[in-house]
Amino acid sequence: MQDTTIFKEIPSRQPNTPLLDGIDTPEQLRDLAEEQLPQLARELRAHLLWSVGQSGGHFGAGLGVLELTVALHYIFNTPEDRLVWDVGHQAYPHKILTGRRAQMGSIRKKDGLAGFPKRGESPYDTFGVGHSSTSISAALGMAIAAKMQNLPRKTIAVIGDGAMTAGMAFEALNHAGHLRSNMLVILNDNDMSISHNVGGLSNYFAKLLASRTYNQVRDGGKKVLQGAPNLMALARKTEEHFKGLISGGTLFEELGFNYIGPIDGHDLPLLIDTLRNIRELDGPQFLHIVTKKGKGFAPAEADPIGYHAINKIEPKPPVTAAETQPAPKKPKYANVFGQWLCDCAEQDERVVGITPAMCEGSDLVRFAERFPDRYYDVAIAEQHSVTLAAGLACDGAKPVVAIYSTFLQRAYDQLIHDVAIQNLDVLFAIDRAGLVGEDGPTHAGSFDLSYLRCVPNMLVMAPSDENETRLLLQTGLAHSGPAAVRYPRGTGPGTVIDTDLKTAPIGKGRIVREGERIAILNFGALLAAAMPAAEALGATVADMRFVKPLDAELVRDLVERHDLVVTLEENAVAGGAGSAVAEFLNEEGIDASLLHIGLPDRFVDHGKHGELLSECGLDTDGIQSRIEKRLARMNDQKALRAVK
Amino acid sequence: MQDTTIFKEIPSRQPNTPLLDGIDTPEQLRDLAEEQLPQLARELRAHLLWSVGQSGGHFGAGLGVLELTVALHYIFNTPEDRLVWDVGHQAYPHKILTGRRAQMGSIRKKDGLAGFPKRGESPYDTFGVGHSSTSISAALGMAIAAKMQNLPRKTIAVIGDGAMTAGMAFEALNHAGHLRSNMLVILNDNDMSISHNVGGLSNYFAKLLASRTYNQVRDGGKKVLQGAPNLMALARKTEEHFKGLISGGTLFEELGFNYIGPIDGHDLPLLIDTLRNIRELDGPQFLHIVTKKGKGFAPAEADPIGYHAINKIEPKPPVTAAETQPAPKKPKYANVFGQWLCDCAEQDERVVGITPAMCEGSDLVRFAERFPDRYYDVAIAEQHSVTLAAGLACDGAKPVVAIYSTFLQRAYDQLIHDVAIQNLDVLFAIDRAGLVGEDGPTHAGSFDLSYLRCVPNMLVMAPSDENETRLLLQTGLAHSGPAAVRYPRGTGPGTVIDTDLKTAPIGKGRIVREGERIAILNFGALLAAAMPAAEALGATVADMRFVKPLDAELVRDLVERHDLVVTLEENAVAGGAGSAVAEFLNEEGIDASLLHIGLPDRFVDHGKHGELLSECGLDTDGIQSRIEKRLARMNDQKALRAVK
Repeated sequence: MQDTTIFKEIPSRQPNTPLLDGIDTPEQLRDLAEEQLPQLARELRAHLLWSVGQSGGHFGAGLGVLELTVALHYIFNTPEDRLVWDVGHQAYPHKILTGRRAQMGSIRKKDGLAGFPKRGESPYDTFGVGHSSTSISAALGMAIAAKMQNLPRKTIAVIGDGAMTAGMAFEALNHAGHLRSNMLVILNDNDMSISHNVGGLSNYFAKLLASRTYNQVRDGGKKVLQGAPNLMALARKTEEHFKGLISGGTLFEELGFNYIGPIDGHDLPLLIDTLRNIRELDGPQFLHIVTKKGKGFAPAEADPIGYHAINKIEPKPPVTAAETQPAPKKPKYANVFGQWLCDCAEQDERVVGITPAMCEGSDLVRFAERFPDRYYDVAIAEQHSVTLAAGLACDGAKPVVAIYSTFLQRAYDQLIHDVAIQNLDVLFAIDRAGLVGEDGPTHAGSFDLSYLRCVPNMLVMAPSDENETRLLLQTGLAHSGPAAVRYPRGTGPGTVIDTDLKTAPIGKGRIVREGERIAILNFGALLAAAMPAAEALGATVADMRFVKPLDAELVRDLVERHDLVVTLEENAVAGGAGSAVAEFLNEEGIDASLLHIGLPDRFVDHGKHGELLSECGLDTDGIQSRIEKRLARMNDQKALRAVK
Repeated sequence: MQDTTIFKEIPSRQPNTPLLDGIDTPEQLRDLAEEQLPQLARELRAHLLWSVGQSGGHFGAGLGVLELTVALHYIFNTPEDRLVWDVGHQAYPHKILTGRRAQMGSIRKKDGLAGFPKRGESPYDTFGVGHSSTSISAALGMAIAAKMQNLPRKTIAVIGDGAMTAGMAFEALNHAGHLRSNMLVILNDNDMSISHNVGGLSNYFAKLLASRTYNQVRDGGKKVLQGAPNLMALARKTEEHFKGLISGGTLFEELGFNYIGPIDGHDLPLLIDTLRNIRELDGPQFLHIVTKKGKGFAPAEADPIGYHAINKIEPKPPVTAAETQPAPKKPKYANVFGQWLCDCAEQDERVVGITPAMCEGSDLVRFAERFPDRYYDVAIAEQHSVTLAAGLACDGAKPVVAIYSTFLQRAYDQLIHDVAIQNLDVLFAIDRAGLVGEDGPTHAGSFDLSYLRCVPNMLVMAPSDENETRLLLQTGLAHSGPAAVRYPRGTGPGTVIDTDLKTAPIGKGRIVREGERIAILNFGALLAAAMPAAEALGATVADMRFVKPLDAELVRDLVERHDLVVTLEENAVAGGAGSAVAEFLNEEGIDASLLHIGLPDRFVDHGKHGELLSECGLDTDGIQSRIEKRLARMNDQKALRAVK
């Protein structure tokens, strides 16, 4: 029985939560009487809404698993029992119940709580989960480790229906079913990943839900079967299919799981009873619960995509006269891509847009509306998205794969094996390149220049602003062969965008400032930060545009005319664009003083994008001071040589 | 009805194949009368056995799909209809029937036919397929492209049951079922990928086969149903599950396919009839055929793993006295790994061995026998293999993932996101690093140093011989955090192996030859080729052992004492070990003349490993001449400066 208060708006004052205030560990939760739990859930929902209102962040997913979170910590002996949340967006209630209630205001802020479970943060966070669909593999590993050590520990993975479309979830189910390990997989079915769910699997879930009178059917079914002895014989022959008929869970049963459900994931007493029973079962268990993303908060229930996450609720400042005309809003890089894709698709009917479940994030919304026949959201299925594009390119289409840098890591083999080796005409529009801010290291796109640059046949481009992004996207599309354009999250400097569909010459950079002594070779969106540093230093600045092929002529010219060549990129220095310049000079036997400025060789924690850039020395001050330090050292060395 | 002659041995003389001799294109095949096809299949089998006997190569898979290949080209209008073979091992009969009969002797040889379908080789090879499980995605892309162009073209993917375990096959099925595209997926079910198949899915296939009287059941089922009207009502409610009951294919039907089968894949008339019917159906079709790997060749039917591929049958040369004592056989690098894993597992009960379906290739056979409770073959599921290891490492196990360099590309995100970010204790034993020879570019491990070196927390090692491989594997295991050891395919120089379990100091190389002027910094197994070049040049040679962390002290020392520093690796120069040296020197502001020797920026075609190394300038002569050329240029530049 559901017992959920529906909030119409986010509480602006801290709600009164007497029960919750006493819960600093799940052990204290387990001391509560079962009858107290619905009240605790109400308090938890109020507190969650209020605290996310204070801090901003994800809460739609958390509201959906709120009752489940209470039930899991009540029934299982966490942290000894291992609880793995797939895609940590849903872990806010978990964080509140596991000793981090007071710190929730710091979530996703620099030095604050992470937005996802994080092993270093709490013993209750058993596995870091930023990318989706990892939980079953990780939990299976933990279950095996427990068995090796003869520990009676239980292991639970909670995975959403959206995450279930990814191949690795299937790989893990297949293996877990085969091993018959003691573990529980809970499918949190809200028919909603970040975008709407896609695929045969989601149709299957829909069908299961359509027969939600399943408990009645089950009893009815048994009676009918008993009255038909011939059929009973047949039933024994094909037992597993009859189980499917009765329980509605053949797909998972066929993979070796004991399927239980679907049950209402907001009915706390039912969840408690069910989990208590399951806890005693051996072998792989599969519990299917049905929940509502944003449950208990009316606006989020109505618009779960819009309320996937929210910004902090700021008190409105007094309005001054100058502010009554709102400043024209700068487009995000993603919007520049979205607009370009519509424009080029208008001109070229071969263009196809592909996204692995990031329609909104990559801004394919308008494209999807205008060109529904050429739009493919393949669900969370990065590997498939790239090989699908390869197949399209084989037969004359012009596929554009819109993907985040961090998620392209999931399709790296497909990019090499299916696209690059065959030199196929696929364009990768790589969003969220570089640091991404609040989502932290799991979502940072710190490596794409390194992992793409080594792949033969690839054209790799790093635009420096919005207009360049459009220009280089069109260049990649016009180019025959695989191409990648990587651009950052959020907005750029606000350049005026030429709405024509122009292309740039392949492998040619451009000088944007003439100076002397120092040449800054810029690869990507840090150009705006570099310009004031260049002014201060009197440096030449080249916007290289192409990481591969490199503009050899320009590099040679700049090296000849300058004492120090600085490479700049928002990518790991290791193997990045700067090292391409070094390799080229070494190949040519050209001596030069090189300074590589880029991301450090460590995972950078979450925080605001600007804060993180400063921390890494990639803001104007950082760039300038790195260069000045090197100049000073060069002068010292020169002086030393003169003395010698 | 099957009509297969069983061969007891490989024909040593070219068989008489009058029908086959007239088939240079599938069009000529389609001109044959249906009654002639069984004879054609017999001739094709004889020719295939004979030609693979001449050339060596894969044939177990080809024998299994021989009748299917004949039937597909007979019924479908290839190459206009698109035929995609998953994992091209099975494509030999396809190559013979599509105009390449006379060239089969050159298969897998330098400048000869590729061992897999290859787009550049023939219009009948619609998609290059070296890695498994790509066919459904690629075929779906082609089907969409055909629809965009209003072409009535058919698209067929043929995928083995082993390949079906990979997540990306599931991703593609899920998407294809949702789109309802016109395509045919043929599941070639031989319960055998390269190793034996693993997972719930294979249990499911086994169950389907156990009910192979399915045609009878189907009719019987219908009758029973008609006699039970109450049940009919229930049946309508849950229609899809009854389809499952009747056809045995619920899993695929639930994903949106029309499931047909299982049928006997060696019964040519039945295949022809079935495919003719399916050709006329709209929407996604799924045909399940049952075949035997090695069909028609008795030794291969009995031992399909051993006969996955064979070497060329050489006429025995006359035996000389010296040869009667066979030379002691050198172990392969894989064997060194296999032995080490057993030895360390003996000492440390936390050690777990994981392989994604490469038990024999990675030489885990003895480990699997001796430590069955700590051995996990996860099937073709690279992504899962790595995150499973991460889960194990969370709870105190010491997982070792044995994986080929090229397949680790499939788990790149899992390596970064699940292992490296969390700094977990997972050791990657990376086999087939560098060029791999006959399998060609799809299987080459050319990029691992580049794609691993940019990942923070990783320890990356490249041993130079067998003994070093064992030493560095143990070093990686003892190290706390993620570590990778990459070693090549095949045998090494034959170093004596110290059977103790010793470790090397982290981030320290060793000087193996003192010389002057030139310092060769060796990263990996090319050391043996470099030594004679170093002798000739009087060069110093350092075996660096660690690509990451780099031995900074040693590099600094060598740069100081030499005019030219040469880096050597069997990895792409782009972002590889050499560029790590360049980055370090640039970071320190140390001027040096650097020469990077490694793999070129292009995909290297198939051929013998030694031939390919020569072609890439990575044999002794190539290394020496590259260095001499650079020295000559440096002298010229010096002379020029002196004149100035």
